[in-house]
Amino acid sequence: MFQNKTVAVILAGGQGTRFWPVSRRERPKQFLDLSGSGQSLIQSTASRISGLVPAEDIFVVTNEEQKPVVAEHLPEAKLIVEPAPKNTTAAIGLAAINIAKSNPETVMIVLPADHHVSEPDVLLKTLSSAVDAARREKVLVTVGIKPTSANTAYGYINKGIDLGQGVARVKRFFEKPNQKRAEEYLAAGDFFWNSGMFIWRASVILESLKTFVPEIYDRLVLISTLSEDPKNTAQIAEIFAEIESISIDFSVLEHAKNVVMVQAEAFGWSDVGSWDSWGELFPADDERNVSVGDVLIVDSQDCIVRSEKRLLAVLGVKDLVIVDFENACLVCARDRVQDVKLVVEELKRRGRNDLI
Amino acid sequence: MFQNKTVAVILAGGQGTRFWPVSRRERPKQFLDLSGSGQSLIQSTASRISGLVPAEDIFVVTNEEQKPVVAEHLPEAKLIVEPAPKNTTAAIGLAAINIAKSNPETVMIVLPADHHVSEPDVLLKTLSSAVDAARREKVLVTVGIKPTSANTAYGYINKGIDLGQGVARVKRFFEKPNQKRAEEYLAAGDFFWNSGMFIWRASVILESLKTFVPEIYDRLVLISTLSEDPKNTAQIAEIFAEIESISIDFSVLEHAKNVVMVQAEAFGWSDVGSWDSWGELFPADDERNVSVGDVLIVDSQDCIVRSEKRLLAVLGVKDLVIVDFENACLVCARDRVQDVKLVVEELKRRGRNDLI
Repeated sequence: MFQNKTVAVILAGGQGTRFWPVSRRERPKQFLDLSGSGQSLIQSTASRISGLVPAEDIFVVTNEEQKPVVAEHLPEAKLIVEPAPKNTTAAIGLAAINIAKSNPETVMIVLPADHHVSEPDVLLKTLSSAVDAARREKVLVTVGIKPTSANTAYGYINKGIDLGQGVARVKRFFEKPNQKRAEEYLAAGDFFWNSGMFIWRASVILESLKTFVPEIYDRLVLISTLSEDPKNTAQIAEIFAEIESISIDFSVLEHAKNVVMVQAEAFGWSDVGSWDSWGELFPADDERNVSVGDVLIVDSQDCIVRSEKRLLAVLGVKDLVIVDFENACLVCARDRVQDVKLVVEELKRRGRNDLI
Repeated sequence: MFQNKTVAVILAGGQGTRFWPVSRRERPKQFLDLSGSGQSLIQSTASRISGLVPAEDIFVVTNEEQKPVVAEHLPEAKLIVEPAPKNTTAAIGLAAINIAKSNPETVMIVLPADHHVSEPDVLLKTLSSAVDAARREKVLVTVGIKPTSANTAYGYINKGIDLGQGVARVKRFFEKPNQKRAEEYLAAGDFFWNSGMFIWRASVILESLKTFVPEIYDRLVLISTLSEDPKNTAQIAEIFAEIESISIDFSVLEHAKNVVMVQAEAFGWSDVGSWDSWGELFPADDERNVSVGDVLIVDSQDCIVRSEKRLLAVLGVKDLVIVDFENACLVCARDRVQDVKLVVEELKRRGRNDLI
């Protein structure tokens, strides 16, 4: 039987200002050991997939600035360098063109670099069915995770009819909902968290890009040809700069008819999108406080407190995120964790390069 | 005309766990430059009184442990060392006996070491009338400060009839009131903050101690006699240990008939009793936040934020006190500042000598 080769494509372009003060310009989220596992998130991502893909078949899409850090964290991975951050469509397209050069029927497992999974075996089983589906059919496979809560931080996939072998049609994608809608999704039973993991053959995604975003596709093909000669670097950067910054969800998945979903039981997945969701990776005390490091909590509830070296003492407070790291300490309302970037922006405005 | 000599007695036995993490065991509140003046509170206290009392006539009642720090902060002061902390009655009594040895009619200005005064000239004028009163009559003079707010952190003096020359009788002393009562006191007009400053002749306070707490008086007299021979140290400590720990307000002032009050206009006085009242020493921003040091405040109200060296970033919070100092950071609800000692106690329980 025909067996296409399978590779992994890790998308690692994120900036991660949301994890300030731990994340800094030269050390975005994916390079942090946020789960306390001893590995950075990107290393954990590569480790997890190693059961399906050998280390030398892992591609990482990154940028010039982060290239050395990626090489340090994943010395065996092949690096694909974007001249500028252009969202997932360009990153995936660039990877697909590179991979298609050896064999267009290669199956790509596209993975965000900075997610957390506490049950990697369950994930691998799911990805394995997804790879099988991508081998059998010219489909774009998404991974829908059975929601365990009415989470408003994730996009949702509304599952359609079952096609057998663990695969289903996709009725529609939904953006991050409000609380009420998230509860309706959870109750409905046929809504799944959109994990941001995708599985398809290089040829199939390239065909889709050609159909739905030809102006991006054409530029990526041109760049691929030009990149064979190192003296074209400046020209490549110019062309790349013109590419629209758009997610693969918007450019392709919401329009293509060949999108399917493999359904996954919750495998302890989190996109670790904020300090708030970071807190969910750790056990809480009787008053629902999470503390990591040298922390003393007195008469406080629902706090997330993380210290690196110094003592953080917390008295009589509620719903706070407190993170102490190196030369800075953040004290933030729990419902404002999405706005930590405001602090980083203000520090940038003040020229505090020692802190960003 | 007969002129009694005037001396100052600074009471400096406080532990000041309320200012943790800035105050530590070996560096209580009175030795901190809490107002940012460049002087510790005890140095400011001595400086203020220098207009009335020469430096060599300043006595400081302290303990064995703090003796070297006092000597460092006030090299010219005369130290009176208590074998154990026994509240204000014993401290004042011990000082009075010592001072009476040269001349029992010496006027003592008794001052807490750790208060803040922003208008020292007004204070000196007030103390000057108090000294005059103490010279004229055998009275115990208290200093009542015209309240500028319905403060619940201070005791109050209910002023009686005027006796002339800026002196009035005292109807009654009142403990720290609740909010409702504090507002009544403020509205009444004849209630004054009890500043904890007292002015009297050594002979007059000793006579009062003999009358109202003879068991304390007798022990202090015995200690004074014994202290002439250095080999009595152990015996002195034993006798001192038996002395009741009671404030001069309770032991004498609430009972004596010769208690009077000099009335002072507010002279920017604060007992700096907590981080909350510390915040009042500094100007606030438009959202009533006080920040001292490297602080970034975003979308927050009514916070007191103090940093020593590192950046403290505060986002979307309200009514917090945040203090970063050396190896610890405190995040505390503003209405729980009186309980900072709970943190210190818990650290002590955990054997964290590096932090207390």
